[in-house]
Amino acid sequence: MTQHLRREIELLKKNILSLSTLVEETVSQAVQAVLDRNKELAIAVHGSDDAIDQMEIEVEEDCLKILALHQPLSIDLRFIIAVLKINNDLERIGDQAVNIASRARALSDFPEVQDPFDLQGMTSKVKKMLQESLDSLVNMDPELARKVCRSDHEIDDIHKQSYSITQQKLKEDPSLSEPMILFLSVSRNLERIADLAENIAEDVIYMCTGDIVRHGRGLQEK
Amino acid sequence: MTQHLRREIELLKKNILSLSTLVEETVSQAVQAVLDRNKELAIAVHGSDDAIDQMEIEVEEDCLKILALHQPLSIDLRFIIAVLKINNDLERIGDQAVNIASRARALSDFPEVQDPFDLQGMTSKVKKMLQESLDSLVNMDPELARKVCRSDHEIDDIHKQSYSITQQKLKEDPSLSEPMILFLSVSRNLERIADLAENIAEDVIYMCTGDIVRHGRGLQEK
Repeated sequence: MTQHLRREIELLKKNILSLSTLVEETVSQAVQAVLDRNKELAIAVHGSDDAIDQMEIEVEEDCLKILALHQPLSIDLRFIIAVLKINNDLERIGDQAVNIASRARALSDFPEVQDPFDLQGMTSKVKKMLQESLDSLVNMDPELARKVCRSDHEIDDIHKQSYSITQQKLKEDPSLSEPMILFLSVSRNLERIADLAENIAEDVIYMCTGDIVRHGRGLQEK
Repeated sequence: MTQHLRREIELLKKNILSLSTLVEETVSQAVQAVLDRNKELAIAVHGSDDAIDQMEIEVEEDCLKILALHQPLSIDLRFIIAVLKINNDLERIGDQAVNIASRARALSDFPEVQDPFDLQGMTSKVKKMLQESLDSLVNMDPELARKVCRSDHEIDDIHKQSYSITQQKLKEDPSLSEPMILFLSVSRNLERIADLAENIAEDVIYMCTGDIVRHGRGLQEK
């Protein structure tokens, strides 16, 4: 690999990590806005999302430039393709944060309504999963990435429980239908973030090992 | 471009079109299962999704092989990158079809409950948008793709209306909370499919013109 390509790849790695840090902070901000019924914090999420969108475009342009100028091979090619996909997933996580923030704005009209399920607990688990998927990217750690892939079903189960609990509350007190549906959406958005973290982990595994583990393929091997 | 690269690109185009046809059929099948409260049809969607997952992996492997072996440049490089992304979007549309089919299975327990909003109308519009995004891909037609991007807000509006209507029905008759939440999920899944169709159209514009129109950028120019 030429010195020039090495420099470009290091810069790309730096940029995707900056993006991942911003995305992580934006998710935290959005969920905190729900937990605190804080409209101002929710509004601030939209500003962060604009920055995420701009960074996503720049990372993609950088990837295309490297592909066109350096025509990288093997591990470098895999790295660029994985970054292209992870970049896209990070932007989609930003979109989910915006969705959560919109629910937070609407929920701030119901300050007296309690969280119907353990939103804080679910959030901690999703944030840990996202954090670990990004750590696996930073450290090129396929083992940690495999761990992330295996934990996705736990979030799916929590979402299913949240769904049942919320529906029960809704039946008990129909006047709460609006906030309950909003809480349900937040749970669904968190579940989507967990899915996207799993996608990132799958791409890290591919980047490090060349193994394709999507759609449950290959996870049994470890 | 070498004869060999030309052949590989033609084959890739054929494969992504086969995938898009299968995805389109799967979405139709899933929505029909909701409209007819048909459990068997809903179950069949899962089989189609397995085939979609398999095809997605093959298309991605083909793209990587072409990049590694031929190191394509300019329009060919853009084509391969766009196919990589469209491939991913098609697979995600397949996942949404599976979600709709799961709701269809659950809704088949409520054969007497009417659709709370014009599900058939919403479906037709989403299917048209998906169809046009795929046509813009087949014909490399950036104008049609721009039309798709402009029509996404229409689906967003329909989803918002469905949301209000469903919530109203739910307040009027709390015993319907389960089917109403299921209908709301179907509306949300259809809205997601429209978003993904818009992503495909954006990638077609990029592929044909090199313009980036994501996040509303550049659509005003035409």
